[in-house]
Amino acid sequence: GLWRRQAALEAAQEDEEEKELRQRFMAPPVSGLRELRRRRRELRSRMELLIMETQAEVCRALADLDPGASFAVDSWERKEGGGGISCVLQDGEVFEKAGVNVSVVSGLLSEEAARQMRSRGKSLKAKDGKLPFCAMGVSSVIHPKNPHVPTMHFNYRYFEIEEADGTKQWWFGGGTDLTPTYLNEEDAIHFHKTLKEACDKHDLKLYPKYKKWCDDYFYIKHRGERRGIGGIFFDDMNSPSKEEVFQFVKSCAKAVVPCYIPIVKKHCRDSFTPEEKLWQQLRRGRYVEFNLVYDRGTKFGLLTPGSRIESILMSLPLTARWEYMHNPPESSKEAEILEVLRNPKDWVH
Amino acid sequence: GLWRRQAALEAAQEDEEEKELRQRFMAPPVSGLRELRRRRRELRSRMELLIMETQAEVCRALADLDPGASFAVDSWERKEGGGGISCVLQDGEVFEKAGVNVSVVSGLLSEEAARQMRSRGKSLKAKDGKLPFCAMGVSSVIHPKNPHVPTMHFNYRYFEIEEADGTKQWWFGGGTDLTPTYLNEEDAIHFHKTLKEACDKHDLKLYPKYKKWCDDYFYIKHRGERRGIGGIFFDDMNSPSKEEVFQFVKSCAKAVVPCYIPIVKKHCRDSFTPEEKLWQQLRRGRYVEFNLVYDRGTKFGLLTPGSRIESILMSLPLTARWEYMHNPPESSKEAEILEVLRNPKDWVH
Repeated sequence: GLWRRQAALEAAQEDEEEKELRQRFMAPPVSGLRELRRRRRELRSRMELLIMETQAEVCRALADLDPGASFAVDSWERKEGGGGISCVLQDGEVFEKAGVNVSVVSGLLSEEAARQMRSRGKSLKAKDGKLPFCAMGVSSVIHPKNPHVPTMHFNYRYFEIEEADGTKQWWFGGGTDLTPTYLNEEDAIHFHKTLKEACDKHDLKLYPKYKKWCDDYFYIKHRGERRGIGGIFFDDMNSPSKEEVFQFVKSCAKAVVPCYIPIVKKHCRDSFTPEEKLWQQLRRGRYVEFNLVYDRGTKFGLLTPGSRIESILMSLPLTARWEYMHNPPESSKEAEILEVLRNPKDWVH
Repeated sequence: GLWRRQAALEAAQEDEEEKELRQRFMAPPVSGLRELRRRRRELRSRMELLIMETQAEVCRALADLDPGASFAVDSWERKEGGGGISCVLQDGEVFEKAGVNVSVVSGLLSEEAARQMRSRGKSLKAKDGKLPFCAMGVSSVIHPKNPHVPTMHFNYRYFEIEEADGTKQWWFGGGTDLTPTYLNEEDAIHFHKTLKEACDKHDLKLYPKYKKWCDDYFYIKHRGERRGIGGIFFDDMNSPSKEEVFQFVKSCAKAVVPCYIPIVKKHCRDSFTPEEKLWQQLRRGRYVEFNLVYDRGTKFGLLTPGSRIESILMSLPLTARWEYMHNPPESSKEAEILEVLRNPKDWVH
């Protein structure tokens, strides 16, 4: 299934297939000069290809590490316009649950839904209360079995909304972040360093800004803890230009495999105790708490009519645990990771 | 621990202790005539005793069924006023996780928080933006180990809020509901019949109304399923009179043990397969989804500064599971329960 998809993707880079892809997933252009349309479509297409390439690249890397496991590949269509492809590996030897999802959807949004979509909550002027929109993205959560291999999440997305006066609002969002069960400083540094290098190629201000945004975003308020040791996170990014932001997003997407896969390779054969597995399960519980209570993407998805629930909730771990009043002893390895979740550190300078 | 608490509770029914209890948990009366104060305090005290009796009764029944298991009993105080007692049994022989929590808190609410507290969202007029309030309740979730024993939840609560002009708003809320992994019609009928009898003593209209409210409230919208096979649920109940509503709530609270414990006794030694355990774990996942995404009590608790997170999240199961695209085969026992979760039935007439 996966290899057929990959072949299809490569073929899609050819003109003929690209057209077909566009027909399947994209809303017809709604206004504007012919030339502007062509250019916008071009960026849309390039982002769409980046999304699909990223999905294929990550799936290939996972399949290489867990050759016995098989991917479930589902393509789905949204009644209201667009669709997506979900690839999910479950109960493998290395991965407990790993999902990589792409979607390209378009249609009409209510003003309220449009406002929620945007983190800064800018109000957008609708024609007859409805805003034509196009949203596309790739998102993934990888939960490994071994408690010494961290969970990783990434998501890169692009939005376009057309206001009543024909103005197009567009922005990119995304990020990559790591959630270890136990702290390994070397891994934390490698992960952050790889992301920093991807950012630094574009603007030296980006990594520090998006590292902080990540720490702030993945905050489980009722626990006083972050979900993990962070990475980068950004939303509503629409400057300096569409092309430059796209290039930045591309660098980030290309950094996913090099920032994470070496960590998996390094630790997937580490031995572990039942107590370490139990701590992993309790941390998985926190992961569920963040995703269901705070994550804007999940909340937005659950509230959107016609969204594909299985693809949204694919981010949840296969198993999780909640113990009443579990408090690891001081100076334990469990307390060590809690400390950095409570007080985020700078891993690279 | 538990038995000492029980003895303390019995002693509290005597005048001397009652006064002490009131001092510990209650805000000083803020206005009104002496006589009115006395009467209101009386009902508050009686509700508080009902809450504590219910906690003790349920804990005693659980301890009888799972004699090897021990309860963690924690009493806690809220900086802003009031406190509570949590009793939690974890990883017993019969129960996976069972928590019974009482709390009596008072202080000042913001207008926004007061609005959220009330399901009908009535606006309340505050003096200087703050409303003096008193809230008390008993709540419990019991997750048994055996997949043939259903999970049960109940909650009975009382609120008072004082508006700027001195008007006191008061209301009761509560309910008892059952979440089986597999459908057992005899058990479903026993459960609903016991609740109906408790309601019918007060008004024949109550059971049908609150049975429907329960089915509507415990709806996991994104799944198109109810959390369980229902029971009764009500909120904002403030008529015909404070005394009559209290008597109704008392009947409901007294029905908790007889509606549930016989079902536990009947099935706690049933044999089960690993597949049945797995289905239980998937249903636990849905329980988590409801509680974290929709439950008003949980959401309100997580957003309230100074609330005790461990007592709020004690409702979560010890373990849960999420599989991508799990769909039980048609005509299976798993499909049978899904059918009644999608289309609630009337169990008694």
